[in-house]
Amino acid sequence: MQAIPNNLRQHETSAAEAAALIQSGRTLAVGGYTSAGYPKAVPRELAARKRAGEPLAVNLLSGSLVGQIDELLADLTIRRTPMFESPAMRRAVNERRMVYVEQQIAKLPRLLRSGALGGIDVAVVEALGFTEEGRLIPTSSVGLMPLLLEMADRIIVEINSAQPAGLEGLHDVYLPGRPPERRPIPLLHPAHRFGEPFVRVDHDKIRAIVRTDEPDQAPAPEAPSGIMVQVTANLLNFLELEAARRWPGGLPPIQSGVGNLAYGLVTALGRSSFRDLKFFCGTLNEAGMELLLSGQAVAASTSAVQMTPRVTEILRNHGHSLRKSLVIRNQEITNDVEPAARLEILALNTGLEADIYGNVNTSHIAGAQVVNGIGGGANFAQNSGLSIMLLPSCGKGGAISTIVPMTPHVDICEHDVDVLITEQGVADLRGKDDVERAEAIIANCAHPAYREHLRRYLDRAVALVGGHHPQLLNEAFDWHRRLKETGSMAESGIFSSGG
Amino acid sequence: MQAIPNNLRQHETSAAEAAALIQSGRTLAVGGYTSAGYPKAVPRELAARKRAGEPLAVNLLSGSLVGQIDELLADLTIRRTPMFESPAMRRAVNERRMVYVEQQIAKLPRLLRSGALGGIDVAVVEALGFTEEGRLIPTSSVGLMPLLLEMADRIIVEINSAQPAGLEGLHDVYLPGRPPERRPIPLLHPAHRFGEPFVRVDHDKIRAIVRTDEPDQAPAPEAPSGIMVQVTANLLNFLELEAARRWPGGLPPIQSGVGNLAYGLVTALGRSSFRDLKFFCGTLNEAGMELLLSGQAVAASTSAVQMTPRVTEILRNHGHSLRKSLVIRNQEITNDVEPAARLEILALNTGLEADIYGNVNTSHIAGAQVVNGIGGGANFAQNSGLSIMLLPSCGKGGAISTIVPMTPHVDICEHDVDVLITEQGVADLRGKDDVERAEAIIANCAHPAYREHLRRYLDRAVALVGGHHPQLLNEAFDWHRRLKETGSMAESGIFSSGG
Repeated sequence: MQAIPNNLRQHETSAAEAAALIQSGRTLAVGGYTSAGYPKAVPRELAARKRAGEPLAVNLLSGSLVGQIDELLADLTIRRTPMFESPAMRRAVNERRMVYVEQQIAKLPRLLRSGALGGIDVAVVEALGFTEEGRLIPTSSVGLMPLLLEMADRIIVEINSAQPAGLEGLHDVYLPGRPPERRPIPLLHPAHRFGEPFVRVDHDKIRAIVRTDEPDQAPAPEAPSGIMVQVTANLLNFLELEAARRWPGGLPPIQSGVGNLAYGLVTALGRSSFRDLKFFCGTLNEAGMELLLSGQAVAASTSAVQMTPRVTEILRNHGHSLRKSLVIRNQEITNDVEPAARLEILALNTGLEADIYGNVNTSHIAGAQVVNGIGGGANFAQNSGLSIMLLPSCGKGGAISTIVPMTPHVDICEHDVDVLITEQGVADLRGKDDVERAEAIIANCAHPAYREHLRRYLDRAVALVGGHHPQLLNEAFDWHRRLKETGSMAESGIFSSGG
Repeated sequence: MQAIPNNLRQHETSAAEAAALIQSGRTLAVGGYTSAGYPKAVPRELAARKRAGEPLAVNLLSGSLVGQIDELLADLTIRRTPMFESPAMRRAVNERRMVYVEQQIAKLPRLLRSGALGGIDVAVVEALGFTEEGRLIPTSSVGLMPLLLEMADRIIVEINSAQPAGLEGLHDVYLPGRPPERRPIPLLHPAHRFGEPFVRVDHDKIRAIVRTDEPDQAPAPEAPSGIMVQVTANLLNFLELEAARRWPGGLPPIQSGVGNLAYGLVTALGRSSFRDLKFFCGTLNEAGMELLLSGQAVAASTSAVQMTPRVTEILRNHGHSLRKSLVIRNQEITNDVEPAARLEILALNTGLEADIYGNVNTSHIAGAQVVNGIGGGANFAQNSGLSIMLLPSCGKGGAISTIVPMTPHVDICEHDVDVLITEQGVADLRGKDDVERAEAIIANCAHPAYREHLRRYLDRAVALVGGHHPQLLNEAFDWHRRLKETGSMAESGIFSSGG
């Protein structure tokens, strides 16, 4: 590895000079995936230019959410694709000061290559350095980096010396090609390597190289709440029964999302009797890294590793030996439907709310206010061998039931949810018709304070409207209306208005 | 080929004796896919037993809808999976006299193999005959036949001499295996053969063989209505522009559903300037067969061929020469996400209604009354290279707008619809945010009689609720309510009630 090849030394420059290459009104693409491997210095300089009064506005594109950049660039982003994580950006999107093009991250490569999202003016990416042959070595994520570099007119590279050198050799980059030349993705198991441990880049497009020395700001893992501990305990009980019946060789590769739920889940798996755990996910968290280190997990395929101080230490000391079990891939593989379906992954996802039939709203509060966007969960749920949805049964101290008569937005359809689990219990929805699904969800998953109300809604929908999927359209959203008007879904008399 | 191998001659019997093997209270699986290759004599005997007063009740399982059997067995089916096509069965399901387990047909093999849907007592399938080695040669569909034979405890085979011998050699059966041994599906193009031209069957499970001589009752193709002719014309105009920009080698493999819309679509493609057409679909109709015969289509991968008299004639005379372009596969390949995504298929689907953002209801009238079930369209839309939704803008002489503020059921989420087309025009939704999508759909696709109402709904939703996906929950279903109460969505004053 080398920091900067001789032929590119002329482009070494300051973050401010590099940022000056980025023009207003164009599309800026940034590397990084969740909170890993994102460029740090150039986006900060861009934000500084905006704060200094420059009328700067860009279309911001990335592979997934990149919270640190989203928050920095919220004021100068006028169009954001495909998801985001930032309170400032969320306000701007929901106040319609920013255009947000929501899209599943699995579909993003196809859309980009088709030209439907336009071109990319500048791509800014982070790297450990270059190989002797001049290829880029990514850091803690690969994400969409290869495609962004291929599509961008101009490229800015940040070489980050704070990223552990142990990351080198963990990457596996494979581009499936385009039809009619596209071939099967060879992946047979999560730790299978079939690509290259670097990203090819056209040196003629590299216009600036900036040295940085700044760790990822990875979110610190938090201990899960009491309710989520119980959700996870219910999950593990269910998985033990299912494994005894169906998976003599152990659990299938596990997909879980990002955040505290995923951290709690993976931690609980580590305390379980399950061995030889495998992950096929977008982001591997600290708990997953500990399992790889201890040997309780034997394989992880991911697009990003969350670089907490502990993970950084693990990679510094054990990066080389982890090459047999940890593979950091590009998003065309980690989020593609082909490997997920082939592996029959165990998909563990969450959402904001589910309806009595199991349709899930993962993205829009009250159907209108977007949180982070649909992301990757829906495609994993669709193509898994078993799709489990995990929710607390209520929120805001009981003011909200996450099980509602109808969700005002649907991201994951009921037929892509096999099992629904809350702290109350488990509803196994497989092989059930819609009313049977509703009965199982209400009896096993709803909070007791709402159970009777939901049961009455279902009974009345069956009696008054009937059909295969009974719904009372006149009052399906009464719970959401009541929440807005009174601050709680649980007001008495909620069912007395409709007919 | 032989009709019946020597070792199985003892099992040749009448349809009535074969039907006597089917016991009440068990799961009966039938071969066939859409209106092709279904068993004919044994289901009829079963229906006769029921009519004669026997208290017969079965769980009915098939790969897809099998209209002829669904109608015959509606009175004795107590549980139906995964879809159906029969007015009698529809009434029974919607009156909750029959349990209907709706499921995407792409997911069905995984669910069956997992045991989640229970076992299969008897499978009844149709075949042309046996190979010299004793394997079964399917007729006009393969569908789920290999898996049903593998799972069933006992098997009844109908040997149908009315099916053209030219079907022999068109089949290609490949089972992808199960994780962790599952390998990539080798398919590289629609006419690619990589399996076996027969279905393996355990002779010990065959308990009856019945000879029949009865053609498939394939639905006669109907000329499309004037509105659908215009929808199709809009589609072709769009495809020509898209092809010029993006597909220099011609259109990607086309997926279209069953029914008159698909027939009109394929007929129109035949009159277009497109050459080297390829199909990757569940069912190939007569128009598609004509294109293969004329050479305008060069490849078709399908699970079933609709055996109209003309198609039967084509297969009698040209079956052998069609082997290079026509492949009849099992459903694990035709409906799997892996080949669809790899080929970046052009998915052409329809639905009952779409909301202003592009969420589609394909299955439930007024959100409650199921029509046929979700079927295969949603998975094709999710995994296509381009997903186009085709709808007439209104129905029932204008009483119904198919573009509504909110659909009371969602089967295909907005992000899986790239382009929406009605007879009014084309809304290209790619790269748009939600309000931009709504503006494009209302301006280009809604019927003029409803356009202003939809525009006012959107404007008021933006003003009163706002957010990324504005919806007025208090009045989102007013159109559906008005339709139920007055027979039309278009009543004046429709917007004056909410707030």
